[in-house]
Amino acid sequence: MAPPTQICHMNNGDSLNGVAIRVVTKETAAPPAHSASLLDTDEFRRHGHQVIDFIADYYAGMGSYPVRPSVTPGFLRDKLPAEAPRRPDNGFAAALRDVRDHILPGLTHWQSPRHFAHFPASSSTAGALGEALAAGINVVPFTWTASPAATELEMVVMDWLGKALHLPESLLFPGGGGGTLLGTSCEAILCVLVAARERKLAEIGSRRIGDLVVYCSDQTHFALRKAARIAGIHRDNCREIPTCRDHMFALSPADLRTAMDADVDAGLVPLFLCATIGTTQTAAVDPVRELCDVAAAHGAWTHIDAAYAGSALVCPEFRHVMDGAEAVDSFSMNAHKWLLANTDCCALWVRRPALLVAGLGTEQEYILKDSAEDGHDVVDYKDWSVTLTRRFRALKLWLVLRCYGVEGLRDHVRAHVRMAAEFERMVSSDERFEVVVTRQFSLVCFRLRSPEKLGGEKAANEINRRLLQEVNVTSSGPYMSSAKVGGIYMLRCAIGSTLTEERHVTEAWKVVQDRGAELLRKMEISSSVLA
Amino acid sequence: MAPPTQICHMNNGDSLNGVAIRVVTKETAAPPAHSASLLDTDEFRRHGHQVIDFIADYYAGMGSYPVRPSVTPGFLRDKLPAEAPRRPDNGFAAALRDVRDHILPGLTHWQSPRHFAHFPASSSTAGALGEALAAGINVVPFTWTASPAATELEMVVMDWLGKALHLPESLLFPGGGGGTLLGTSCEAILCVLVAARERKLAEIGSRRIGDLVVYCSDQTHFALRKAARIAGIHRDNCREIPTCRDHMFALSPADLRTAMDADVDAGLVPLFLCATIGTTQTAAVDPVRELCDVAAAHGAWTHIDAAYAGSALVCPEFRHVMDGAEAVDSFSMNAHKWLLANTDCCALWVRRPALLVAGLGTEQEYILKDSAEDGHDVVDYKDWSVTLTRRFRALKLWLVLRCYGVEGLRDHVRAHVRMAAEFERMVSSDERFEVVVTRQFSLVCFRLRSPEKLGGEKAANEINRRLLQEVNVTSSGPYMSSAKVGGIYMLRCAIGSTLTEERHVTEAWKVVQDRGAELLRKMEISSSVLA
Repeated sequence: MAPPTQICHMNNGDSLNGVAIRVVTKETAAPPAHSASLLDTDEFRRHGHQVIDFIADYYAGMGSYPVRPSVTPGFLRDKLPAEAPRRPDNGFAAALRDVRDHILPGLTHWQSPRHFAHFPASSSTAGALGEALAAGINVVPFTWTASPAATELEMVVMDWLGKALHLPESLLFPGGGGGTLLGTSCEAILCVLVAARERKLAEIGSRRIGDLVVYCSDQTHFALRKAARIAGIHRDNCREIPTCRDHMFALSPADLRTAMDADVDAGLVPLFLCATIGTTQTAAVDPVRELCDVAAAHGAWTHIDAAYAGSALVCPEFRHVMDGAEAVDSFSMNAHKWLLANTDCCALWVRRPALLVAGLGTEQEYILKDSAEDGHDVVDYKDWSVTLTRRFRALKLWLVLRCYGVEGLRDHVRAHVRMAAEFERMVSSDERFEVVVTRQFSLVCFRLRSPEKLGGEKAANEINRRLLQEVNVTSSGPYMSSAKVGGIYMLRCAIGSTLTEERHVTEAWKVVQDRGAELLRKMEISSSVLA
Repeated sequence: MAPPTQICHMNNGDSLNGVAIRVVTKETAAPPAHSASLLDTDEFRRHGHQVIDFIADYYAGMGSYPVRPSVTPGFLRDKLPAEAPRRPDNGFAAALRDVRDHILPGLTHWQSPRHFAHFPASSSTAGALGEALAAGINVVPFTWTASPAATELEMVVMDWLGKALHLPESLLFPGGGGGTLLGTSCEAILCVLVAARERKLAEIGSRRIGDLVVYCSDQTHFALRKAARIAGIHRDNCREIPTCRDHMFALSPADLRTAMDADVDAGLVPLFLCATIGTTQTAAVDPVRELCDVAAAHGAWTHIDAAYAGSALVCPEFRHVMDGAEAVDSFSMNAHKWLLANTDCCALWVRRPALLVAGLGTEQEYILKDSAEDGHDVVDYKDWSVTLTRRFRALKLWLVLRCYGVEGLRDHVRAHVRMAAEFERMVSSDERFEVVVTRQFSLVCFRLRSPEKLGGEKAANEINRRLLQEVNVTSSGPYMSSAKVGGIYMLRCAIGSTLTEERHVTEAWKVVQDRGAELLRKMEISSSVLA
């Protein structure tokens, strides 16, 4: 059997098939031992321009990649040597060629205009270059003093974004709240859950951690359960309240009240509610105002997870989904999902920052204190999150807001919502298909109706599972994902990639329709054979 | 009073002093509503080259910035408008000019060759451009399927780096262990602490979470206490075992045993030991082998936090600090600190990945499963960390290892160690100063000896506090930080910035020496006046 093609390292003096190799090219020559050569300005400029062109070329050719690679586990590991090279390996340009030839073909291309799976990870010129700029500047703003402009810019952009999303004043700095930029929603939920837990334990005694209960719906992202587990909430004390199709899979305030009452009767302590605006599976919206009322009556903290749909709040026409949000304790959304702020960029706002600092704050002698920090209006963001070290994410978000403006972000969101409405219309107008849940944002959940003669939900689920497989193996076709909600298996078409245009959506529907028709034909043949 | 200079937004139709403004330049024209224009290839290329040149120019001029800005809280917030611009604000080039004119002057320049505070956040061409490349490609490899090459490259580079650092085989994939890339040490510690906690609670019953105890020294980074608090470990159950100057501030295995025995006698359960290689304050090294023995005897998990000094392990001459590491359960280090892999890049290895997955794993229906995932050797990294969404950090680390080679990294570390040895030598040869703790890596902890006639540690601390202030206000001088250990206040000179050369270290010493001499002279005058 022929060995797989290897990306191999060759070092001076290495031997290949018994013949000593002497690799001497301009690029392979070992650099001088001086550290400063690792950040040589001319070299940075030269290689940097190569990287920019590389990325631009990648975007330009994006449409031609299959969204998902057809590779099997080990395909890349088998190609790479078992150890890092001893000496610089054949130069920067060669590394970029290997990225092009060996790595890109093995990626799932989240920036493809035909990536409709999961939720988007939207890129933009300002977002990608904001990351590049922050990586180059490479400051670590864990305290105000550790990089004042980075901290202040973060405070400013959190207010900018909060206002752009129509968040209540109570969550913004001028209203006594405030925001911070983290990596992901799970981090955000974990931070506020710890703040809520510490506040509650201060009231009831820290030995009662095992009595604390968190609440969500059966549609809530696993991030909540993960955060609760990390925070030491007992595994039995996470109430996933069932939802139903009749109520669009939204969490029922009455059911929440019943659950909280039952726990109180059992001697347990309601701690935390995670409500969602735009659930992962079907983009369901929990009723914020009514849920806040129930939670408040039990002294529980209410967090809103709007990871995906939070971006839509830039448009006034979606503001109604936030009705009653004045009462929430915290709110998070991922600007890296649908708001052009390349991964990662999770925005978290809290109504009472002091509770966050009480839960997560540190004080250390080695941190240089200076007069600027004493009694002045500064934030040390290390006390607002899990991590101490942090990146300068605010620069990226500032660039995105500044370069596109709030109206530009609205145009962007509305374009995808229009495309999703069109996809929904096409599905609805084909009687072989059905839209399972009425679309609210840019996610369409749909399926093939089960053929009468096969009947039953189980058969419907099976045929739709096969449909998704058929759709996704089409190398020039779309990439979609699935959900199973209320026993119903459905396909998810989540529109939000920056490069997606109307034609990609139309073509995607064509593939779904063709594959669906083919599947139905095959089934009719097999059922007529059986009959 | 004149209003502060504002970075203002002007939109068509806005009014300034009652005069309607019509801003019409090529760059301010609103973009078409089409999303794809937000990622236009030509525009990306044009703006990308501007960003690369901007960063290169920043590095080229780095030496001329004061390391710390002289700004007061609010300096930037006051300049920025209260809301995001409605429409694109004056173009990309103008945004970069504002970064140059308003943001850079307010940063603490961690890449300055005169930044000797905290620990380094070392940049390199490959590290910065690796971040840029990953941000542009913008895939989200939370599962193998979600981007196979990204997951496999992470597995490969974790083995590469682990071997380069001389880690025991038991922590690498071929030995049954494995590694992952996270953001920070606190995240890493939290992940393994949760894994350890879940394993222990499975043995003793989950209601006993309040009985679990974690151990560290009084030198351990706050990250451990923060992680323990987040993980729901009782605040009283974090043992910070005192260290002393006679033992170089290392954790004593005998003291650890005493503490664990006492807890067991009190009905508590030893859970977790965080030992450190290279503590934050003085770079102390805890004795790994002996500590592992004590922890193992009590069934506790041993984690090694080598956030800073882990990078030095690329050099065989430092390998001895890891003696006995075969027995550790987990190990983490920050490749973004001293190993050129721009922030953030925390590498975590564990001996038994299954325990990590048991503690942090998720299973969700909506994630598309395919045959590749069933029974094959793939890792879904979402189950190895707090976060589900994650960045493609492996690309950056791969570029760093490939472009510099292990020998290149050794040269880099050794250059800084040599400079630190030289700084230590200069301090030692000036009788007014003393090195407080023998240097092991590239951190020198030193102070002015207290003048006999003033006497006492309190006076010594006060004069050294003033010395640090004097050193740090010198706008063309170095930026150092402080530690207070065993009652002794000392200055910390941490060498590790990529751009630092011998001359910067010599100049830094000259500033310290001059300021010290001046302080001593003033004190002599004031004491003679008093006498």
